[in-house]
Amino acid sequence: MKVKVIVTLKNGVLDPQGKAIQQTLNSMGFLNVNEVRQGKYFVIDIKENDESKAKIKAEDMCKKLLANLVIEDYKIV
Amino acid sequence: MKVKVIVTLKNGVLDPQGKAIQQTLNSMGFLNVNEVRQGKYFVIDIKENDESKAKIKAEDMCKKLLANLVIEDYKIV
Repeated sequence: MKVKVIVTLKNGVLDPQGKAIQQTLNSMGFLNVNEVRQGKYFVIDIKENDESKAKIKAEDMCKKLLANLVIEDYKIV
Repeated sequence: MKVKVIVTLKNGVLDPQGKAIQQTLNSMGFLNVNEVRQGKYFVIDIKENDESKAKIKAEDMCKKLLANLVIEDYKIV
């Protein structure tokens, strides 16, 4: 089954890429954009039909590889 | 309000970054990972309290900047 994971920067961590996107949007005429923050999205196809087991596996992958827990949060969706 | 957007590669478009993550997971002992595909996640803070208007604005941003519609799909979530 496919498990979807979102990894985002923690609040307070600077996001220069998001800032650049925000400035570009502003310069394109989207003047009402206050802030943009960018994160990562993963779709992981796991050989496992039990949803809760697959999610536990995905969580383990987040902790060990996909997210840097010092500056990032992850969410299994 | 904050609008969340997910941008993913279309099916069939090669994803070397996802492939690299899959191979790394396999080498770390996660042998039951068939495939990983990576996308982008944006949180856009728009000065607009009407949810449907904010989503229309976000869709416009996706078409004009955030997604390359030749190879990517976007989803407002």
